[in-house]
Amino acid sequence: MQAVVSIIMGSTSDLPVMEKAAQVLNDLKIPFEINALSAHRTPEAVEKFAKGAEERGIKVIIAAAGMAAHLPGVIASMTKLPIIGVPIKASLDGLDALLAIVQMPPGIPVATVGINGAQNAGILAAQMLALGDADLASRVADFKENLKTKIEKANKELSEIKYDFKTN
Amino acid sequence: MQAVVSIIMGSTSDLPVMEKAAQVLNDLKIPFEINALSAHRTPEAVEKFAKGAEERGIKVIIAAAGMAAHLPGVIASMTKLPIIGVPIKASLDGLDALLAIVQMPPGIPVATVGINGAQNAGILAAQMLALGDADLASRVADFKENLKTKIEKANKELSEIKYDFKTN
Amino acid sequence: MQAVVSIIMGSTSDLPVMEKAAQVLNDLKIPFEINALSAHRTPEAVEKFAKGAEERGIKVIIAAAGMAAHLPGVIASMTKLPIIGVPIKASLDGLDALLAIVQMPPGIPVATVGINGAQNAGILAAQMLALGDADLASRVADFKENLKTKIEKANKELSEIKYDFKTN
Amino acid sequence: MQAVVSIIMGSTSDLPVMEKAAQVLNDLKIPFEINALSAHRTPEAVEKFAKGAEERGIKVIIAAAGMAAHLPGVIASMTKLPIIGVPIKASLDGLDALLAIVQMPPGIPVATVGINGAQNAGILAAQMLALGDADLASRVADFKENLKTKIEKANKELSEIKYDFKTN
Amino acid sequence: MQAVVSIIMGSTSDLPVMEKAAQVLNDLKIPFEINALSAHRTPEAVEKFAKGAEERGIKVIIAAAGMAAHLPGVIASMTKLPIIGVPIKASLDGLDALLAIVQMPPGIPVATVGINGAQNAGILAAQMLALGDADLASRVADFKENLKTKIEKANKELSEIKYDFKTN
Amino acid sequence: MQAVVSIIMGSTSDLPVMEKAAQVLNDLKIPFEINALSAHRTPEAVEKFAKGAEERGIKVIIAAAGMAAHLPGVIASMTKLPIIGVPIKASLDGLDALLAIVQMPPGIPVATVGINGAQNAGILAAQMLALGDADLASRVADFKENLKTKIEKANKELSEIKYDFKTN
Amino acid sequence: MQAVVSIIMGSTSDLPVMEKAAQVLNDLKIPFEINALSAHRTPEAVEKFAKGAEERGIKVIIAAAGMAAHLPGVIASMTKLPIIGVPIKASLDGLDALLAIVQMPPGIPVATVGINGAQNAGILAAQMLALGDADLASRVADFKENLKTKIEKANKELSEIKYDFKTN
Amino acid sequence: MQAVVSIIMGSTSDLPVMEKAAQVLNDLKIPFEINALSAHRTPEAVEKFAKGAEERGIKVIIAAAGMAAHLPGVIASMTKLPIIGVPIKASLDGLDALLAIVQMPPGIPVATVGINGAQNAGILAAQMLALGDADLASRVADFKENLKTKIEKANKELSEIKYDFKTN
Repeated sequence: MQAVVSIIMGSTSDLPVMEKAAQVLNDLKIPFEINALSAHRTPEAVEKFAKGAEERGIKVIIAAAGMAAHLPGVIASMTKLPIIGVPIKASLDGLDALLAIVQMPPGIPVATVGINGAQNAGILAAQMLALGDADLASRVADFKENLKTKIEKANKELSEIKYDFKTN
Repeated sequence: MQAVVSIIMGSTSDLPVMEKAAQVLNDLKIPFEINALSAHRTPEAVEKFAKGAEERGIKVIIAAAGMAAHLPGVIASMTKLPIIGVPIKASLDGLDALLAIVQMPPGIPVATVGINGAQNAGILAAQMLALGDADLASRVADFKENLKTKIEKANKELSEIKYDFKTN
Repeated sequence: MQAVVSIIMGSTSDLPVMEKAAQVLNDLKIPFEINALSAHRTPEAVEKFAKGAEERGIKVIIAAAGMAAHLPGVIASMTKLPIIGVPIKASLDGLDALLAIVQMPPGIPVATVGINGAQNAGILAAQMLALGDADLASRVADFKENLKTKIEKANKELSEIKYDFKTN
Repeated sequence: MQAVVSIIMGSTSDLPVMEKAAQVLNDLKIPFEINALSAHRTPEAVEKFAKGAEERGIKVIIAAAGMAAHLPGVIASMTKLPIIGVPIKASLDGLDALLAIVQMPPGIPVATVGINGAQNAGILAAQMLALGDADLASRVADFKENLKTKIEKANKELSEIKYDFKTN
Repeated sequence: MQAVVSIIMGSTSDLPVMEKAAQVLNDLKIPFEINALSAHRTPEAVEKFAKGAEERGIKVIIAAAGMAAHLPGVIASMTKLPIIGVPIKASLDGLDALLAIVQMPPGIPVATVGINGAQNAGILAAQMLALGDADLASRVADFKENLKTKIEKANKELSEIKYDFKTN
Repeated sequence: MQAVVSIIMGSTSDLPVMEKAAQVLNDLKIPFEINALSAHRTPEAVEKFAKGAEERGIKVIIAAAGMAAHLPGVIASMTKLPIIGVPIKASLDGLDALLAIVQMPPGIPVATVGINGAQNAGILAAQMLALGDADLASRVADFKENLKTKIEKANKELSEIKYDFKTN
Repeated sequence: MQAVVSIIMGSTSDLPVMEKAAQVLNDLKIPFEINALSAHRTPEAVEKFAKGAEERGIKVIIAAAGMAAHLPGVIASMTKLPIIGVPIKASLDGLDALLAIVQMPPGIPVATVGINGAQNAGILAAQMLALGDADLASRVADFKENLKTKIEKANKELSEIKYDFKTN
Repeated sequence: MQAVVSIIMGSTSDLPVMEKAAQVLNDLKIPFEINALSAHRTPEAVEKFAKGAEERGIKVIIAAAGMAAHLPGVIASMTKLPIIGVPIKASLDGLDALLAIVQMPPGIPVATVGINGAQNAGILAAQMLALGDADLASRVADFKENLKTKIEKANKELSEIKYDFKTN
């Protein structure tokens, strides 16, 4: 099936983090593709990817990178599709990647999620696509309801714990 | 005309920054509304706003706040519409607001732009809406082209400057 | 016995940290309850909790959260009870949670303790309650005296160590 | 009238910030006193103050300091009254004062508010005192209601603005 | 004369800072050119610039940018010429630009100077070029000697000041 | 009179800050000298200064520098006299200078005071010298007493202010 | 033998770090004592210690503490002896302790060394004492010479390594 | 063969990081040498090294150091050769070393690479040398092409993975 979301990452080492975005899209039945493309080491491939994405049917791009994380911004400069940026924690606790992704100059936004926030990137992509897809909107609502149910169950268990404190 | 983007801010003092988002939406002929709603001082109004937004026809919400900036995340927890967060520089150079907006827990993303990045928030909202609106997509493309033309003109002028350096 | 302190946390994974608050309250014979409530994933439960707390007899709320830690501030906006906020270290060494809790806007304070400072949150709750409870005030004084005695004992042992330095 | 809240600050230069705490207490009819006491330059006066506070009828202490802000913690070590700490912005945007106040070791909490958060310190003191004073509790509720009304009025004015954007 | 150093900046607003690089090159008689090229707003122009630079005779590129400063890294990915990056202070005291320039991934270095360090960027370019140009090497040595002489003169004046302290 | 304290600074622009160190030494009748010596621009002069200081009768060196502040550490590596480092606020709020001075490797300490803390540098130098000079020790005690008296006077005035709050 | 340096630490858990200060003093034959005294948990013991130190023959105090590290500053406020502060890494990589120790207000310096810099604290104490003790001065010179010899030996070994790189 | 690049590091413990610079130079057939020289512990050796480097045939110096990392700047002040600085992560995630290396004062640049960025330091040195050596320029181009090929191969493998997500 034709992918509508494209997940790209600056390095294959980001895959363990980014699989969580793929998992969300899979759960929500949104066709997606995954690629590793380095803004700095394969600039031509990035350009070809970014400029061809819309024509290939991609609607939202999730781009992840660490350190001086240029990939999301570089892609954002080459397409008018919305770009979701995921800062990867590789050095300085991920603060370098966060700032390098979110602090874009006027004209070229990147929709940034938290450090290593791949799951949220997947959900955000789904929310964007759901604007024009009532079926997906309903699946997103179910997904969120599901999360809430899990939390409520955990809380119920927590409130039933009998604490047995040691006497000091 | 029915607003499809809602701009809300934590305090009326954020208006000078947030007008740039309104300007973009106005330029792109996207109907919008502006409100000030404090996550902390008017929580009921925030809840009513967030839960009723979708039904009123709102498709994207731009939420701005400074300091311990909870407004974007709180609204995100009450609607499945995509939320764009704008960190306002009010203390600590805006780093507190940036972290309080972007570092959302799994399940509730906020699409965060840069500190005081209101113009980019407007463009990002337009990009999301353009996914299902070919006319708007074309206006967004024109808007981006327009930005580029201005830059190219500025560069041309710069490259024609004759420097007259003082001799040291 | 009717709880007068309510400990809530954004995620059940915060329990190992927050048990130290419970331990203090237990030691000081202050009735308490523990719940997990996510500001973002279960906002209605949070609202119901916050608005009903005073009526149920709760006097002080200890709220813990990590990352973009909104829980303490959100609860503070829905009750006039004093709220003690505990930033949980989950990313960026806990600095994001600290700023997201302490930097509240004018009108809605959160009494913030240090990162993972659950024990201090328990003591602070006791100090607040002791303002109107002479018996508890005396137990708090004993508790502090007890801490001091332990420190003095440790110091005594330290000062009696015979160092046997290697010759360089 | 006998003061029940004592506002102390590390330097008289902190007065313009700390007057906002006094204003809140005055509005809420809570008797208070103000003093400047330096943890470092007048340690004996600080000790005399801290150890005598409870006996003089003080119930809550608001302590403000900048830079290596030791005053709140030092007082907290000498009394079992609850201490509210206000980090003053004097260098490093106030981050040094925030960390020096909030990161207290186990056993000695300081209830920290935001940088220059004097108004919130006043409200927090009132919330603590209101635990045992129903009349004050009602005045605190009115005070919060009042804040909300102001915000709602500002929002109403904001939503009635007619924007007259320049054409780009 | 054919430029051998190319100064590019992300925005014409960076010119007042970057003129200091031009001044150094002018003083050292190194032919240069200045352009404004935005990595994000004119990516095709950047690509054309970067890929053609070597052929046009450029030997060193000085690239300046602020915020999520991608320009130096993007150019570095498209040429094998050495790139000198100048972080411009536009937000967060320039820390965002510094990290976004210096923290490049393995394979694509950017020779980063300090925040707003345009003068040093010019000197560094000269030092690189002097590796293969004995005449320039001698002018660089003179330039450094000159700086030293100015400092020594300032120091001499300083050491001759007669202080007239007020009595305390 | 032969100087026993030497104040050096990386740039003559640091003089307005460093005069406060000179003022303290003057008040305490400690002979001193002031020089500007750049670790980076006049390394030979720094070396000559550092290696000759002890022989010339200098006992303590106060070294101030901003940004990548190497001067204190460089001097510390060339003499066994105690070095007091003063970080000058020139960029990044002085945090760069603080870290570049205080984080010395094992073997070469620099006694660091706060950012722009020139007055404290002067007092610290006096405290060191007072270890072997009973007269000076007594003048240092008077100096500290004097500071305390000023604070006590300011506090007295503060506690006598009659507040006239506006009614809200 | 009568101690002339007193090492105190805020918690016995700081001992593994602070033993390096003791080792230096032992190597340099400087009599010392070690105590654990918490500024916050045993304030009276700290006061008694600080005020009696000079009379007991102590000449320099090394004080170590982590987090909101008040111990060095509190002692500095109660004696005119020079105080060396050692920030202990316990949270936030030790940045909180560094700022809470070094950023002292005018009048009360603390001679701060790097995070966990106990060895340097010992050397700095020795340098201060050596100002009035020629024998010790000579031992300090030997100690520094010794460090240099070790480095030179390591370098010699390093420069003799034969690298056997894998071919890529 | 006569070394043209000299790798020096502040401590032999930096060797595991710095070997990556050596590996690059080895791969590119650029003769190099490696030494450990501490700016603080062996200042005379550093001076002798820096002043003699050019005469010995060294063209580029790569200098690595951690914490208050003075080595690159100190060497830069003693030679007109270009200096590449590598901040080593030893404390504070390497932020102290980064700032202490990159924030050089006007007149004395250090070409700084990312934290622990030894591989990039080697490449940057090669790029500088390639300005006057067409053979080396061609080897650098091959090296970069090689990196790209590896990335493309990894990407190809990634895009062929069949994900087998668990059903939630």
